[in-house]
Amino acid sequence: MITTENVKNGVNVDQLMATIEAVQGNPELAKFKFRSKNNWIEGGNCVSSIKSFYGVGEEDTTRDKTFTLECDHPQVLLGKDKAPTPPEVILHALGSCLTGAMVYHAAAQGIDIDAAESSMEGDMDLQGFLGLKPEVRKGFNGITFKIKVKSEATDEQLEELAKYSPVFDMIVNPTPVQIVFER
Amino acid sequence: MITTENVKNGVNVDQLMATIEAVQGNPELAKFKFRSKNNWIEGGNCVSSIKSFYGVGEEDTTRDKTFTLECDHPQVLLGKDKAPTPPEVILHALGSCLTGAMVYHAAAQGIDIDAAESSMEGDMDLQGFLGLKPEVRKGFNGITFKIKVKSEATDEQLEELAKYSPVFDMIVNPTPVQIVFER
Repeated sequence: MITTENVKNGVNVDQLMATIEAVQGNPELAKFKFRSKNNWIEGGNCVSSIKSFYGVGEEDTTRDKTFTLECDHPQVLLGKDKAPTPPEVILHALGSCLTGAMVYHAAAQGIDIDAAESSMEGDMDLQGFLGLKPEVRKGFNGITFKIKVKSEATDEQLEELAKYSPVFDMIVNPTPVQIVFER
Repeated sequence: MITTENVKNGVNVDQLMATIEAVQGNPELAKFKFRSKNNWIEGGNCVSSIKSFYGVGEEDTTRDKTFTLECDHPQVLLGKDKAPTPPEVILHALGSCLTGAMVYHAAAQGIDIDAAESSMEGDMDLQGFLGLKPEVRKGFNGITFKIKVKSEATDEQLEELAKYSPVFDMIVNPTPVQIVFER
């Protein structure tokens, strides 16, 4: 028997529709918990390990490897420049998430995405981080995300799809962070 | 001539103090722009390149390599699990930034950090991303950051230092994102 998978933009649309139906039947399946462990090396150099997550009603057993990510700082920020800074990593996560959200939702709606590339820039005033001016914020004042997409859909349609991005939501809206010290 | 560098927690404190003085004398030096380029591969798989940044009054010329970061999705989210998801990458950036901020500010205040490791968890209801329930947010409902620190400082002192983190600020407070489509 030959079966043809219905794949659009690299997304298996049959599986996507089945997932949506399954979640509609049992909203508990939509609850996910993502995790990361972080080890401090020295200064602003840290290494994270990412593997376990909870979703689709159980602890995941399919991921068979641990992803390792690193952060460091360039020389002008007193680091050894072994890896990108945390704010640069945020830009990577944001760009990937906006693009992925656009691609998945386009697939669900039958819209072809033939190509996509983007660039991001965030501006920051380090007087905030250094504690020199309390009125200056510590993070980016703003981020500009420029994306080139090859698709017959309009900019307005594509922007609406991209905005389903979980990371976009976490950046433009407040997300509570609980800090717990253990000894 | 023998010179002894004043290094605490892996941070060159002399250089940190010189940086703070320089910024106090000329606040323009504190203005940074960080950047990332992102290429869509297929589905929820993207690769970012990170190199150029602006800071200390000029385009950086010291970083001699390009960092490459990838995002993908596990099988249950219709990916090939080649790399962590964007929300997992956010946890990596947040943990690294909270830790780095604590370490730098501790160094500036003469506080020793002997060791630090942390774990993060964020919970998400995919009914938001899937567009099934408009009242469910797309990003994490909340993030818990648990950190074990070996230091003589109190939890309260250390938490105050960690909160200088630029990424923490971007997650707990709104950061505007401008989306620009180009063809």
